[in-house]
Amino acid sequence: MLFTAGEYAQRLASVRQRMDAQGLSALLVTDPANIYYLCAYNAWSFYTPQVLFVPAQGDMILFTRDMDARGAFRTSWLPPDSIEAYPERYVHRPHLHPFDYVAYALRQRYLIAAATHGCVGLEMDSHFFSPKGYRALVNAIPEWTLVDCFELVNWVRLVKSPAEIQLMRKAAVVCNGAMKVAQESIEAGERQCDVAAAISHAQISGTPEIGGDYPAIVPLLPTGEEADTPHLTWNESRFTQGQAVVVELAGAYRRYHVPLARTFSIGTPSDDLARLADAVADGVKSVLDIIRPGVPVRELASTWNRTLAKYGLEKPSRLGYSIGIGYPPDWGERTVSIRSEDDSVLEENMTFHLMAGMWMDNYGFELSEPFRVSGSGVETFAAFPRELLQKGTCS
Amino acid sequence: MLFTAGEYAQRLASVRQRMDAQGLSALLVTDPANIYYLCAYNAWSFYTPQVLFVPAQGDMILFTRDMDARGAFRTSWLPPDSIEAYPERYVHRPHLHPFDYVAYALRQRYLIAAATHGCVGLEMDSHFFSPKGYRALVNAIPEWTLVDCFELVNWVRLVKSPAEIQLMRKAAVVCNGAMKVAQESIEAGERQCDVAAAISHAQISGTPEIGGDYPAIVPLLPTGEEADTPHLTWNESRFTQGQAVVVELAGAYRRYHVPLARTFSIGTPSDDLARLADAVADGVKSVLDIIRPGVPVRELASTWNRTLAKYGLEKPSRLGYSIGIGYPPDWGERTVSIRSEDDSVLEENMTFHLMAGMWMDNYGFELSEPFRVSGSGVETFAAFPRELLQKGTCS
Repeated sequence: MLFTAGEYAQRLASVRQRMDAQGLSALLVTDPANIYYLCAYNAWSFYTPQVLFVPAQGDMILFTRDMDARGAFRTSWLPPDSIEAYPERYVHRPHLHPFDYVAYALRQRYLIAAATHGCVGLEMDSHFFSPKGYRALVNAIPEWTLVDCFELVNWVRLVKSPAEIQLMRKAAVVCNGAMKVAQESIEAGERQCDVAAAISHAQISGTPEIGGDYPAIVPLLPTGEEADTPHLTWNESRFTQGQAVVVELAGAYRRYHVPLARTFSIGTPSDDLARLADAVADGVKSVLDIIRPGVPVRELASTWNRTLAKYGLEKPSRLGYSIGIGYPPDWGERTVSIRSEDDSVLEENMTFHLMAGMWMDNYGFELSEPFRVSGSGVETFAAFPRELLQKGTCS
Repeated sequence: MLFTAGEYAQRLASVRQRMDAQGLSALLVTDPANIYYLCAYNAWSFYTPQVLFVPAQGDMILFTRDMDARGAFRTSWLPPDSIEAYPERYVHRPHLHPFDYVAYALRQRYLIAAATHGCVGLEMDSHFFSPKGYRALVNAIPEWTLVDCFELVNWVRLVKSPAEIQLMRKAAVVCNGAMKVAQESIEAGERQCDVAAAISHAQISGTPEIGGDYPAIVPLLPTGEEADTPHLTWNESRFTQGQAVVVELAGAYRRYHVPLARTFSIGTPSDDLARLADAVADGVKSVLDIIRPGVPVRELASTWNRTLAKYGLEKPSRLGYSIGIGYPPDWGERTVSIRSEDDSVLEENMTFHLMAGMWMDNYGFELSEPFRVSGSGVETFAAFPRELLQKGTCS
């Protein structure tokens, strides 16, 4: 068990408190990160439908595909009675859906027997919960009023426990090691795929003391002109002298993520890029300086905007997001975003990826800092210089 | 361009032919593999909503997040006019959804101007198309009758072109190399995460001639008693003498996947495992022997079942599935499954992962063969012995 039984009980109690406040008699949790948070179930089984049923009272029930249900006890602490398999014949069939089975089982076992009635919450925008699954529930259980829970469990995850912070510090060690490998392996003449392979090796191997887990996103290394776009993946081309390479990666430990972005210049950077790097480093520093409990998140954004404006720059996208547990395809928690439209206020042990990515025309620069809001200020997880990192010339 | 303009035109024509047959005036494509197939757009941007609008006549339109739209031309051949950005402020907001914007744009630009009316097809069970996105469309465009297209584009992808087969042969080279690394690195005393790291390195680096792409699924290596479950990921524990390790991995090249599973025994296998391995190898051979165009897929399943029955065994899950383009979290095409409930008939240049995974109580065995239906029989992509592979003793 990664966390104490008491910590899992506390998580469930917090979820049920919010359910009560939102008038929900049950919740259907489909986001793999939320399922892991509540019952520790962890497998690459989310490509077929799965759902954790959380009634206001009584036991949670995990529904997965038959072949996955058999081994769910190996990662989850749920008792065998709380794991229900849907038959293999429901997988990838045009006229049958696993949620047809789930809805049937929920009717038979819980609608009548248990106290679920009225409003039942769904994660209407979670990955891996499809409209087909949604319609199966609508059709099969018309007694329930299905409402969006608006990332209810994600919001419970926002403030981390001391045990979670410890895991994130370990993820940070893996993260630093992987970025060091990126720094060492990026050279003119090297193929992008070989650098990505070296980074991936460092992420998964970790250190002798801390074995790495798979990150929710592959290493991203937009290079040269393509660095004006954040999410392109590597190719087979070779780095050339004068290119800048943006590296965004994460260290992951037991599904907890610490992401980091840095930009490397192979040889002397252009004046434009050097100026941009200075502005962004200044902006990041100005934001880190004001972080402490009680500060509204939107103040981080406005501080960033003011600093950047001094350089005649602005950034249309958000400046970061809450982090913690991650499953592909995203390591963000989908709750707080660092931007002026956000109404949240910083609390101790919230954790964020402060992500200052600037995507210009035909070049780009990224600098990030993963951090924890500490009792009196900020703890940055990573330990990597914040400047544009220059690589020497190389044949 | 990975494929000729003619090949892309042919793909679109095939999709429109099916749309016409299903009475669809437009199709909204949300599966990243289908988007890549039709317009070559390729980026790790699918964690925020994106959709390719395919009208029965006229230009396709790709909707993505603003920061991704800016660079979409770097991978897609779509002209700039055909790429539409939704603003950053729609990302991860509780009361706004990117599909609110998409629906608005579709109303303004296409509902009135273009000939879309009546039935519009949706991929109701694709990953990354959420119920919230679906409801945004329902609410904003009541004139459209939204219907499930039942994996329309996936079915077009089923028979591969010669150019696609060439890419899969390259993916097979990467796949063989990665399995060789698995074979070399699995030893008593090694950590699971270090073996996974070595495999991942081989998958991404590929060969000097063929740079690897990221596979849609991380290396899976269920070990010892955990090998009774297929989708558990690695941990930090060390392999021990006498354990069996199931390895499932893929080689990927330009998003085309060739997966492969083998089982390694560290030291002498148990009698049960050895017997199981013999039965499965016999079953796989019996299936490969009958593959040729014109054979019903269900005959592969019944042949497998008959061979396995000789050993007193049966397998409740399907025996394989169609493969080709893959994005996380799955490399299957979600069309043909090799099982008795499937009505498909083999055609030349269909490609499958014949996946003979047997998950028993506290042990398991996997053997697979990725293959192409050739003009007269079968071409297996991989080149790895089909027996239980024994590793020597090691301190």
